[in-house]
Amino acid sequence: MADADDTPFSSGADDRFHDECGVFGIFGRQDAAAIVTLGLHALQHRGQEAAGIVSYDGSQFHVERHVGLIGDTFTKQSVIDRLSGTRAIGHTRYATTGGAGLRNVQPLFAELAEGGIAVAHNGNLTNAMTVQRALQKQGSIFTSTSDTETILHLVATSREKDINSRFIEAVRQLEGAFSLVGLTAKKMIGCRDPMGIRPLVLGDLDGAWILASETCALDIIGARFVRDLKPGEMVVITTKGIESFFPFEPQKSRFCIFEYVYFARPDSSVEGRNVYDVRKHIGRELAIENPVEADIVVPVPDSGTPAAIGFAQQAALPFELGIIRNHYVGRTFIQPGDSIRHMGVKLKHNANRKMIEGKRVVLVDDSIVRGTTSQKIVQMVRDAGAKEVHMRIASPPTRASCFYGVDTPEKSKLLASRMSIREMADFIRVDSLGFLSIDGLYRAVGEANRDAEQPQFCDACFTGEYPTRLLDLEGTDNVRTLSLLATGGQ
Amino acid sequence: MADADDTPFSSGADDRFHDECGVFGIFGRQDAAAIVTLGLHALQHRGQEAAGIVSYDGSQFHVERHVGLIGDTFTKQSVIDRLSGTRAIGHTRYATTGGAGLRNVQPLFAELAEGGIAVAHNGNLTNAMTVQRALQKQGSIFTSTSDTETILHLVATSREKDINSRFIEAVRQLEGAFSLVGLTAKKMIGCRDPMGIRPLVLGDLDGAWILASETCALDIIGARFVRDLKPGEMVVITTKGIESFFPFEPQKSRFCIFEYVYFARPDSSVEGRNVYDVRKHIGRELAIENPVEADIVVPVPDSGTPAAIGFAQQAALPFELGIIRNHYVGRTFIQPGDSIRHMGVKLKHNANRKMIEGKRVVLVDDSIVRGTTSQKIVQMVRDAGAKEVHMRIASPPTRASCFYGVDTPEKSKLLASRMSIREMADFIRVDSLGFLSIDGLYRAVGEANRDAEQPQFCDACFTGEYPTRLLDLEGTDNVRTLSLLATGGQ
Amino acid sequence: MADADDTPFSSGADDRFHDECGVFGIFGRQDAAAIVTLGLHALQHRGQEAAGIVSYDGSQFHVERHVGLIGDTFTKQSVIDRLSGTRAIGHTRYATTGGAGLRNVQPLFAELAEGGIAVAHNGNLTNAMTVQRALQKQGSIFTSTSDTETILHLVATSREKDINSRFIEAVRQLEGAFSLVGLTAKKMIGCRDPMGIRPLVLGDLDGAWILASETCALDIIGARFVRDLKPGEMVVITTKGIESFFPFEPQKSRFCIFEYVYFARPDSSVEGRNVYDVRKHIGRELAIENPVEADIVVPVPDSGTPAAIGFAQQAALPFELGIIRNHYVGRTFIQPGDSIRHMGVKLKHNANRKMIEGKRVVLVDDSIVRGTTSQKIVQMVRDAGAKEVHMRIASPPTRASCFYGVDTPEKSKLLASRMSIREMADFIRVDSLGFLSIDGLYRAVGEANRDAEQPQFCDACFTGEYPTRLLDLEGTDNVRTLSLLATGGQ
Amino acid sequence: MADADDTPFSSGADDRFHDECGVFGIFGRQDAAAIVTLGLHALQHRGQEAAGIVSYDGSQFHVERHVGLIGDTFTKQSVIDRLSGTRAIGHTRYATTGGAGLRNVQPLFAELAEGGIAVAHNGNLTNAMTVQRALQKQGSIFTSTSDTETILHLVATSREKDINSRFIEAVRQLEGAFSLVGLTAKKMIGCRDPMGIRPLVLGDLDGAWILASETCALDIIGARFVRDLKPGEMVVITTKGIESFFPFEPQKSRFCIFEYVYFARPDSSVEGRNVYDVRKHIGRELAIENPVEADIVVPVPDSGTPAAIGFAQQAALPFELGIIRNHYVGRTFIQPGDSIRHMGVKLKHNANRKMIEGKRVVLVDDSIVRGTTSQKIVQMVRDAGAKEVHMRIASPPTRASCFYGVDTPEKSKLLASRMSIREMADFIRVDSLGFLSIDGLYRAVGEANRDAEQPQFCDACFTGEYPTRLLDLEGTDNVRTLSLLATGGQ
Repeated sequence: MADADDTPFSSGADDRFHDECGVFGIFGRQDAAAIVTLGLHALQHRGQEAAGIVSYDGSQFHVERHVGLIGDTFTKQSVIDRLSGTRAIGHTRYATTGGAGLRNVQPLFAELAEGGIAVAHNGNLTNAMTVQRALQKQGSIFTSTSDTETILHLVATSREKDINSRFIEAVRQLEGAFSLVGLTAKKMIGCRDPMGIRPLVLGDLDGAWILASETCALDIIGARFVRDLKPGEMVVITTKGIESFFPFEPQKSRFCIFEYVYFARPDSSVEGRNVYDVRKHIGRELAIENPVEADIVVPVPDSGTPAAIGFAQQAALPFELGIIRNHYVGRTFIQPGDSIRHMGVKLKHNANRKMIEGKRVVLVDDSIVRGTTSQKIVQMVRDAGAKEVHMRIASPPTRASCFYGVDTPEKSKLLASRMSIREMADFIRVDSLGFLSIDGLYRAVGEANRDAEQPQFCDACFTGEYPTRLLDLEGTDNVRTLSLLATGGQ
Repeated sequence: MADADDTPFSSGADDRFHDECGVFGIFGRQDAAAIVTLGLHALQHRGQEAAGIVSYDGSQFHVERHVGLIGDTFTKQSVIDRLSGTRAIGHTRYATTGGAGLRNVQPLFAELAEGGIAVAHNGNLTNAMTVQRALQKQGSIFTSTSDTETILHLVATSREKDINSRFIEAVRQLEGAFSLVGLTAKKMIGCRDPMGIRPLVLGDLDGAWILASETCALDIIGARFVRDLKPGEMVVITTKGIESFFPFEPQKSRFCIFEYVYFARPDSSVEGRNVYDVRKHIGRELAIENPVEADIVVPVPDSGTPAAIGFAQQAALPFELGIIRNHYVGRTFIQPGDSIRHMGVKLKHNANRKMIEGKRVVLVDDSIVRGTTSQKIVQMVRDAGAKEVHMRIASPPTRASCFYGVDTPEKSKLLASRMSIREMADFIRVDSLGFLSIDGLYRAVGEANRDAEQPQFCDACFTGEYPTRLLDLEGTDNVRTLSLLATGGQ
Repeated sequence: MADADDTPFSSGADDRFHDECGVFGIFGRQDAAAIVTLGLHALQHRGQEAAGIVSYDGSQFHVERHVGLIGDTFTKQSVIDRLSGTRAIGHTRYATTGGAGLRNVQPLFAELAEGGIAVAHNGNLTNAMTVQRALQKQGSIFTSTSDTETILHLVATSREKDINSRFIEAVRQLEGAFSLVGLTAKKMIGCRDPMGIRPLVLGDLDGAWILASETCALDIIGARFVRDLKPGEMVVITTKGIESFFPFEPQKSRFCIFEYVYFARPDSSVEGRNVYDVRKHIGRELAIENPVEADIVVPVPDSGTPAAIGFAQQAALPFELGIIRNHYVGRTFIQPGDSIRHMGVKLKHNANRKMIEGKRVVLVDDSIVRGTTSQKIVQMVRDAGAKEVHMRIASPPTRASCFYGVDTPEKSKLLASRMSIREMADFIRVDSLGFLSIDGLYRAVGEANRDAEQPQFCDACFTGEYPTRLLDLEGTDNVRTLSLLATGGQ
Repeated sequence: MADADDTPFSSGADDRFHDECGVFGIFGRQDAAAIVTLGLHALQHRGQEAAGIVSYDGSQFHVERHVGLIGDTFTKQSVIDRLSGTRAIGHTRYATTGGAGLRNVQPLFAELAEGGIAVAHNGNLTNAMTVQRALQKQGSIFTSTSDTETILHLVATSREKDINSRFIEAVRQLEGAFSLVGLTAKKMIGCRDPMGIRPLVLGDLDGAWILASETCALDIIGARFVRDLKPGEMVVITTKGIESFFPFEPQKSRFCIFEYVYFARPDSSVEGRNVYDVRKHIGRELAIENPVEADIVVPVPDSGTPAAIGFAQQAALPFELGIIRNHYVGRTFIQPGDSIRHMGVKLKHNANRKMIEGKRVVLVDDSIVRGTTSQKIVQMVRDAGAKEVHMRIASPPTRASCFYGVDTPEKSKLLASRMSIREMADFIRVDSLGFLSIDGLYRAVGEANRDAEQPQFCDACFTGEYPTRLLDLEGTDNVRTLSLLATGGQ
């Protein structure tokens, strides 16, 4: 991790949305924590900043939380040895606003009167601060800025007797997106919000139950995919087996469609669809909607690659690696002076001049956020001698922020929120620019089109139509308790 | 800090009591955290394992907690820079049973509905687990095993409105020994338990109020000693000045007499007495009570030195450095095999053969805990050629455990709890062994003798007479909630 | 980096050849070390273990050497700040046999009577130990096990007066492969061995000369490619410009053909050919030589991808990402017990089941070393439901070790050295296995075929025909001086 | 170690001379490196910056070098485990001018034609640069700035056949002070310069030979003191026993008298005298030469303590700990702003007010270097209420720099080189100031007085009379080769 005294400049290609979490749990298997480590490693793309694992060994809980990649932090024998037991849950996360430091690294653990409990979740509660403020007024103490702590307190202060009822009472008070895993001395619990905005799948490894954000985390250990948890479903796993509950009013499913566009790993299947396959279909729809005379189709690696393959197949154009990615890139590099700042350093991508020179190039990327990355990529491709550059984007314009667990710039910084497509084309200096239509995107995931009355997915980042209230955002003045929170490493 | 994979053997001389804490706070002074760092450095002898500082800069609290010596962890510019503000409190601590890890490093901080609050204390609550269990039943979540967190929760769950009243309600529920400092957005609070078992002094630095465990922490920064806080006193410091409260039923003072024997620094004055001076008087009383024909008086450095000077002056014998201490000793050393284990390695002390050879030696040490250190020291002095070895101990035999913030072995491991003085002399192989009497100790601190009805000090480690209930110890089965608590680094 | 006490199991995909070095130097440019850092970052694929940079600021040399990735070690402001000056050379390296530790990290620096000199090279000297032994007999002291130190000593002990002549006298005594960069107070020197086995290119950044292993290191900073250094050429760069020397007897060029197959980055051009383009041609030749009825062409990512694209285009089969690579993989993972060892953990690659199920799959990989990786990949693809698996290898069978700077297993561990192709197919359990012929490989790089009398490339790993003597290997008994060398961190 | 970005201010009490080295070796004992670790720990006062150990296990040498205290760096099991073998030598050192970094940490190791050799020494060569320059002209490469490397090169380039003769040829070319230990595959070698300026003792541990700087390093492991090596003696230890050589022209012994004053540990005996005993005699002579009417004698701890005891006994005044030392002091503390800089922070020492108030105090310190520490100490004692302060210094005024292995300020910074005693008394603001006379010092070590023709000791720091040529200092312009040497971590 870069030292505090360093002045980094972030690599240009960090101009992307970031999912904030992946979760993984296993119940009833030797070396549980080692398996969680492998599962989190497969989910590393969902969060690279920090990770935590809590295990239970039959008499005691063990907690390890570390900043850094799973492969660097949880692969020491000593760390794994401390996490003894046959039950464990883990979490990997992207950096949050505000809180660096380990205080916010999940799972969070607490000792209740009934015993220990650990909780981790993927998503974001839209009423966390409102609930937190009410809890503080009753004397609850918050030691992190993570909304997961709110869930813990709701369980702790519940007047219900058994843990299932307490948990149900707790999650009923939550609004927003959450796919959570919990661990107590006797149970592993999984739960998705009523609309199932974030993914959560159930797996099986020789009789041990697994909960994971994506199927790729089952594949890494050869576990069997059982099924997706249903929106609004809560499962409780004990040594006796698995029970299913539906604590919420039934609601129409609104799975995050951006998981297909960018977040999920291409080899995962989520909500019944293979991600790579959806992306190829996206590429095909994109080629149908935005045809262009060109010589080659070049992906912006790696996220644009599946759509570019689909585009090339549909358009019957050669697919070529016209841009090469440096996989060794760290997140920050020093910028010692103006002399280098103005050099346009290509830390992450390099044009493959021989493939590009004199060609009419179709560039395929997954989305445009601020547009600064696209600008640089296009310039690089032009510098390499492209005759024409046509940008094709494998999603509709992203015009609104996400409040369901994705780190997005504020709306005003989203290029599509302040420019027409024509203006965007000028801004990134392409000969043509085409986005996938919202209906095209729905077609690629297998729908006839978007149901405007009752959209089948959460597509708020494209449409601005949020499927839930955004309570913490309304009347912001009331809820700024968090602004006083202490900063600091630990 | 030794790595987890190392197999250390602790230096023999670790056979001592360990105080668990020092506290320091300053209110209303530029560079407050830097001054707290210096104050904690002067209090390092009260706890060497870890330290923490919380500062408040007028709008935000800042927390830093680190494992290691103050001089190694809080002297980086970057750490100090993060602790901005003119108000700060800090804490240095000895390792606790069970909980390694930063979770237990004080001050603990919490965000209440009314704003942030940080608390640190020196001492130990004898009803912490009982209170904790009651709080958990009401839904409070505990994230550490520190009894300081109990205080925070009592403040948080108080139904009183203003912070003074909440604090008073909280401390009234505590039993045991506590000298605490607290920091809120507007106030610095200091409080001693009703019997004033642990020290806490008030100081002044050019108009900025200071709270500190000992006066040596005032001296290091040239602050003025104002007075000791009174037993049971709570002071509240704001920009308007200092207010004094007495929340408890008045009780007779019972200051820890062992602070004079060993814990406090010799240059400190606590409860009106200079520690070095008391120790010299102890040496004089010891010489009067246990005279011996000898050639030289040799201290076991460094804790036995002042008493040895007093002994030598009283006995009119030459004071000589017959044992030299290696000040570079770390806490652990490797023991690669039996060949070395049996060598009797002298990591910390070495006999000064030339001074000792052929002499009748009076060795003066502060106390005997398990006796293993004394055994080794005596053997070393004999190997150096001493003709006779007479051990004189600057306190009565330690026969009982401390439950007021001192890390003591369980009673059965205390040599004096299972042997007569004659047996102890045989065990450590001395020609004679003499302890100071309990009345002699009281005389050395200026009393005529011990008032058996109403002892003027807490001397439970010598007498087994505890000045408070030991609630958590009674009915142990009820309170073992803590045994389920998670272990782990963070 | 994994701690010494960890028991790692290497990710299966580490069953590859490893190039041992990349070099980069710049002369006459502000922030020279920062630019070298960027250049080395682009060359990271040539060596990931450690790196070093030496700069000269007009009066003093500065040396920094660190274990780890460039992006982690040389991106701290403090490191870069210490490397002041407008001239700098750097080196990145793969782990060597024997010598971990910083002693072997290049560039090596020495203070000669004439002033400081730093040297780094890519390649391997086949007479280093023989020369070293002779030098030691004359009193030279060796402090590393790097053959680069031999070069330094030859320069130091030369009786020539000027640095150019000393350098020439030194390199004339070397045998093997070397592409070196050197830095003295007044000069930057580049030199390739007489056959030009390893690459070295000359670049220009606004008038500052650059030497680099590959053109991708020019691209990252927008430098201009000037030309490849010629085999046997030595260039001397001063403030007055560049001079060219040819110190060796002219020999036929024998560039390492494996650079095209695997080592070089696809966006680089070396010896006049674009690497990606050559690899696509390899794929085309492979499809012509080894046709197969199939449904899809799937690369083993990432090294097999360009050849797979070429194969798919030639065979008119769909190119699909049937295997997804986890780019977050570290180099080692813990294996806590048999239960996990036997799970067949898929740390680095995962099959994309939806793409593969029921298909006849052509897998394209660059080479087979031990065969263990291929075994696992094939099994994974079969487990994902492939109907048939046909492996196509983008090079001839690798049958011999490399002694020119590539870390290869000993000959007996190379699968192709002990099995026929039929046996290899059985071993890795494919329906068919095809390698590119040696002539096919020569065709892909633009030759009519291999000139058996005077091969145009070094292809010793395929043919066992070494272009130089292997002096250190002959009469091994004589040269085992190095076996006594000290091990250790520093 | 303080980070590079920190801005430390050194504790005031660092105003002392620093010895630069301690050496220790053992031949023929299991766990040799662990024993060297213990020996170096006992010699830690001779150098705290870094340490190294080289062991030989019968077939291979192992080298470990680390920055930091022995107790922190060489106590990890993994470090000790790597240093296998029954023969080992080690070195601990004070920071050198110029070269931080591990390159200069001894022992230095080299692989000669005849096998490996490691050398470490205590002292300083006064002709190192001159010899180095000559060696470089013949092609020798220097990789450190340590004069020890010069010795290695002289051995390496010797034309003699056997190692003894080569060693003898090498040491005959050295000028200055050196007490060295060397290790080859078959031998451990010890050697003192012809005048025996630095100490070196021979010990025995159950038949295993030991070489050590001081006897305290024998005591820690219970080894037997055999004898001091004689000035100019070289011993060669093999499995067959010990041989003694005298390679130099016989010269009169000139042992460093400052070893008695300050460097050596009080429990050591060097050159036949117990250090503590000498220091007490110094105190007695000081009291005789500089009597004063006073109430108490107070040492400046810890180095002034033995002399103060002697002074008090001679003067029949009470010896009191009027100044308390904080043993936890690190070497550097942050100085966040002027507000703290002007506070006169007492990091290391605190006055014990109760002992001092109203008293006439004799302060005893070992020496005055720059005088800044004395100033602060005196001010502190005055602030504590002393009625009079009389400073007594346990050595003559230090007026000249040392070139024999002690880190001294340049002459112009030595207070005594630019002030009379009267002026010094004013400068440090004492009521009276008295130094020991040079003859008094000689009397304390047992001589009748100093033999002005042929002084019995090296007392150059007091008299400016250097016992050897200072070749590197003469004609400085010729030897500035070292000024070009690279800086940097490794």
